Amino acid sequence: MSVFDIRYYLQEKKDKIEQALAAMMMPASGVFTAHIEAMRYSLFVGGKRIRPVLCLAAGNCVSSAPDIEEQLLFIACALECIHTYSLIHDDLPAMDDDILRRGHPANHVKFGEAEAILAGVGLLTFAFELLSSPDNINMDAATRLRIIHTIAGAAGSQGMVGGQTLDMESEGKTIKLEQLQTIHRNKTGALITASVLAGGIGGGGCQDELTALHSFGDAVGLAFQITDDLLDVTATTDKLGKTAGSDAVHDKATYPAYFGVEKTRKMAEEAVYTSLAALKDFDGRAEPLRAVSRYILNRTM
Amino acid sequence: MSVFDIRYYLQEKKDKIEQALAAMMMPASGVFTAHIEAMRYSLFVGGKRIRPVLCLAAGNCVSSAPDIEEQLLFIACALECIHTYSLIHDDLPAMDDDILRRGHPANHVKFGEAEAILAGVGLLTFAFELLSSPDNINMDAATRLRIIHTIAGAAGSQGMVGGQTLDMESEGKTIKLEQLQTIHRNKTGALITASVLAGGIGGGGCQDELTALHSFGDAVGLAFQITDDLLDVTATTDKLGKTAGSDAVHDKATYPAYFGVEKTRKMAEEAVYTSLAALKDFDGRAEPLRAVSRYILNRTM
Repeated sequence: MSVFDIRYYLQEKKDKIEQALAAMMMPASGVFTAHIEAMRYSLFVGGKRIRPVLCLAAGNCVSSAPDIEEQLLFIACALECIHTYSLIHDDLPAMDDDILRRGHPANHVKFGEAEAILAGVGLLTFAFELLSSPDNINMDAATRLRIIHTIAGAAGSQGMVGGQTLDMESEGKTIKLEQLQTIHRNKTGALITASVLAGGIGGGGCQDELTALHSFGDAVGLAFQITDDLLDVTATTDKLGKTAGSDAVHDKATYPAYFGVEKTRKMAEEAVYTSLAALKDFDGRAEPLRAVSRYILNRTM
Repeated sequence: MSVFDIRYYLQEKKDKIEQALAAMMMPASGVFTAHIEAMRYSLFVGGKRIRPVLCLAAGNCVSSAPDIEEQLLFIACALECIHTYSLIHDDLPAMDDDILRRGHPANHVKFGEAEAILAGVGLLTFAFELLSSPDNINMDAATRLRIIHTIAGAAGSQGMVGGQTLDMESEGKTIKLEQLQTIHRNKTGALITASVLAGGIGGGGCQDELTALHSFGDAVGLAFQITDDLLDVTATTDKLGKTAGSDAVHDKATYPAYFGVEKTRKMAEEAVYTSLAALKDFDGRAEPLRAVSRYILNRTM
């Protein structure tokens, strides 16, 4: 097999996802123009699109349908809407009070606090509208229902939203490593795992395959969060597109604060190895998923 | 037919819905205790439960299954979760900045702003978790998917959330009657219509029945909003459970501000007549739905 070009792959999928988002997202016109503009601003201002890419790549692992990516695009877009909503809300004055996101002013800086809250819930609700849309007739209703349940569970109170509450509650407090891990697993890990699983379910994966993808998702989510913590310490605001050093400012517990930069880097490596081991029974169709995991280790933003 | 006792009916359904909510809502324990407590607080602090009652009553119009209400309860509960989230967010400092709701301190007053935002999105996401839950095996997947799409559309950017953005944008401005109607139709009407429709779809209603229920829902939603505006002017804070006169304080356009109290009362009556006319082809099974509509005209909270 030739060497897999992850940068080319990521750019290609990112373009595909952004085209799909542009097609699926309502246009900023009519009576709700200002609101839709606020949603579109955060959705299209940039982003790595890692969650939707994971969804497409996971679908590829379990399906040999030539159009599997096209079939999964509405799920991929819904995941990005949910992720974007979480960023808008995380930046709010009542939360992290951050002014910069994806290299541009945070949503509330540009549109005001009320509009930013509403842009967030608008994107969250739109995700479920997309997931349940009658347009997606190529996927049977039971499968789509299962995907909705997986994503809602991961995005909600016992997943991403719950993790954010713990993150807020822990600010300025000394917390144990176990608590830090619980925050990360829920705030970031849950939706990443759900992105991988949703692709696997949508692709028609069997239970063994979904179990493997679940383990992969958990490990990749951990790797992603650890490198996120690392980048907050080591990268510049310019490179990061969000305020670097923000964790220290908010006195947040992070992996580097616990273990130092070197040990933390090793832990990220280990998480990536674990993710690759979870895919051992998959064939070459899992190569994109493996490559995304390796890429996370070396990412610079 | 004997006279239908609407007060007894509403109390009975309210009890049934609150029991179901208590059974379906996650308990306040484990790592997310504080967050779940914040959600449970607003969900169980009171409320008329009009939307879930409309859902059950609409199901009764189209289905003769003896357990139709039990089959619809998870949908009824999801609707109440979405309504409760909207109240929590409407009261936020960045929105109406109201301190009282359902006769008790608003969520953000009790739990802080960050937790209130998160309790809101937690309830919204939980609604979709409920709607897609594999526990509800008595309803086929395609029907549930259709219900999710109906509710998400009504709750989102081109429904309730969109209406709230218009409401915020119009504060302190002179707006035309047409704009006031657009705000109401989206902010309040859309979810009320969706509650009626969801009951009708879940009950297996045919297209003609759903069209009639749609018209009924639109008219009832209008009646509800007009009486809401009236109560803000005429009722006391004590009776209302939320701050009376709040519309005037926020310089909001309302029906009484446009038409005066007497003419507004007439308009509410007309809306109720329209709703009853929409149900003309239904038999006695629609009596609860008719009674709820008449009740709205005479409500005092």
